[in-house]
Amino acid sequence: MSPAKLQHPLFERVALIGIGLIGSSLSHAMRRRGIAGQIVGHARTTETRATALRLKLIDIAYTTAAEAAADADLVILCAPVGACGELAREIGPSVKPGAILTDVGSVKGAIVRDCGPHVPPGVHFIPGHPIAGTEQSGPEAGFATLFDGRWCLLTPVEGTEPSAIERLKAFWEACGSNVDLMTPEHHDMVLAITSHLPHLIAYNVVNTAAHLERVTDSEVIKFSAGGFRDFTRIAASDPTMWRDVFLNNREAVLEMLGRFSEDLTMLQRAIRFGDGDTLFKLFTDARAIRRGVLQAGQDTPAPDFGRHAGDSKTGE
Amino acid sequence: MSPAKLQHPLFERVALIGIGLIGSSLSHAMRRRGIAGQIVGHARTTETRATALRLKLIDIAYTTAAEAAADADLVILCAPVGACGELAREIGPSVKPGAILTDVGSVKGAIVRDCGPHVPPGVHFIPGHPIAGTEQSGPEAGFATLFDGRWCLLTPVEGTEPSAIERLKAFWEACGSNVDLMTPEHHDMVLAITSHLPHLIAYNVVNTAAHLERVTDSEVIKFSAGGFRDFTRIAASDPTMWRDVFLNNREAVLEMLGRFSEDLTMLQRAIRFGDGDTLFKLFTDARAIRRGVLQAGQDTPAPDFGRHAGDSKTGE
Repeated sequence: MSPAKLQHPLFERVALIGIGLIGSSLSHAMRRRGIAGQIVGHARTTETRATALRLKLIDIAYTTAAEAAADADLVILCAPVGACGELAREIGPSVKPGAILTDVGSVKGAIVRDCGPHVPPGVHFIPGHPIAGTEQSGPEAGFATLFDGRWCLLTPVEGTEPSAIERLKAFWEACGSNVDLMTPEHHDMVLAITSHLPHLIAYNVVNTAAHLERVTDSEVIKFSAGGFRDFTRIAASDPTMWRDVFLNNREAVLEMLGRFSEDLTMLQRAIRFGDGDTLFKLFTDARAIRRGVLQAGQDTPAPDFGRHAGDSKTGE
Repeated sequence: MSPAKLQHPLFERVALIGIGLIGSSLSHAMRRRGIAGQIVGHARTTETRATALRLKLIDIAYTTAAEAAADADLVILCAPVGACGELAREIGPSVKPGAILTDVGSVKGAIVRDCGPHVPPGVHFIPGHPIAGTEQSGPEAGFATLFDGRWCLLTPVEGTEPSAIERLKAFWEACGSNVDLMTPEHHDMVLAITSHLPHLIAYNVVNTAAHLERVTDSEVIKFSAGGFRDFTRIAASDPTMWRDVFLNNREAVLEMLGRFSEDLTMLQRAIRFGDGDTLFKLFTDARAIRRGVLQAGQDTPAPDFGRHAGDSKTGE
């Protein structure tokens, strides 16, 4: 059942700058509840703009970001983190006073650093990050329920007008999210462990497996149901987006990586010396965190993600 | 739609020694197609034996493994790898000549080493490993489709009678599996990368996250949807089973861990020195393996495992 429509749109005109998985999902979520009077947008390629129009993700497609942003009350940068600074520079002069400028990037310190200087006086700049996604990319990958029950973090810089924060919070809540506020620095530390490190590790396991001599790629693929296949899903995420995440959250990721490697060394020693008690204790501890994730509604309790063998398609 | 029943059972009497996730799933899969004339079993605790009888997983429950194995045509050890040697010693004298003795453990070299010496002449000992499972444990966790489309590896030792291998192969195929043969040594190397390393890494990420000072456990849980929650699912697997895997496949796991750490050091350097091209290339390479996994029918192509936010239960 779809949630009820709002009586009035929260924003008259919303501009999506970039229309991939997150941009297109935002459009679906806005349409679902009538959050925007009008949705306009810009995408870099002619093809994506055509797809976005065909799928009615946007009412008007603009060939430049500046045109798309010009008359909007809410401008949302939905591009890889590394592209946002340049986009902010382009659109800065066109964004109208009183409008809110936000983004959806997975790193927040770098967004403040790169976009902040281009925001004109009178525009409310509030970096944001919906912690939601799938391994798929592009304007056709989006769906309306992506943000339902997930968290969106806003990281306003000091001096931001509280009423603007409230309006952006109401926007994300209408899209289905829970909203929390924190500093950009703390955001980047939290996400380094809950998202960036897991992705890096998944990419690394997949690449290690691909470069073995004693086990072939086809064996790795054929016998992947023992755990490896879950890593391949995570490692199927957009490479540009993730490159930018690691280039722009370097310090926090390196810190988490250091901790991870220390802990792994301890596990490695326990295996080498046959220390079953240490292994058992560490494996048991890990279950408590899983229970927390389920209790917080951040995953489904169905075994194996509710994925039974019969559901998977054979690749014919 | 359930697959059709067989005209005749493949084995008159099958004994399950251990009735957890795999044992109970085997029972469901056998019942589904009439693979066994009768299913009997043994479990260590009174409680599990009672549950197994209540769920009709077994027709007769025995308090000792030797009694359960006595008259069976097929005896399947469904216990953690570390417990199988002692079980083989117990049941060895009771298993009747001509019967097949197999297991479902995730390590095969250790099973040959620990069980082999206790197998009496005339009994066909064929180690096996269905590459299928979920993060759940116990007799109530099983279901009939667990093995459908998954691979089961048999690792017969030299001199095993081909007709016995054929009979065990037919058994697993009737349970829904594809079947492949390889040596115990190669099995342990393949599984070290496709299953054991991924589990070790998942346990480690979860424990690293649990012991940070600058990010709280409740933040880790709340904001887990960015990748971390998938690791918590894998790390929710049975600690005893996994302790035994690492104690019994030490050499292969340490070799894979060495490769993993080398590769991770390269990624770490690329992040430290801002080498975006290397990151992009490695992340792009990882996608090819994902495509292989989907084409091989070893995972569902639905985004995010087909898990949408609306599906997850809140923990009330």
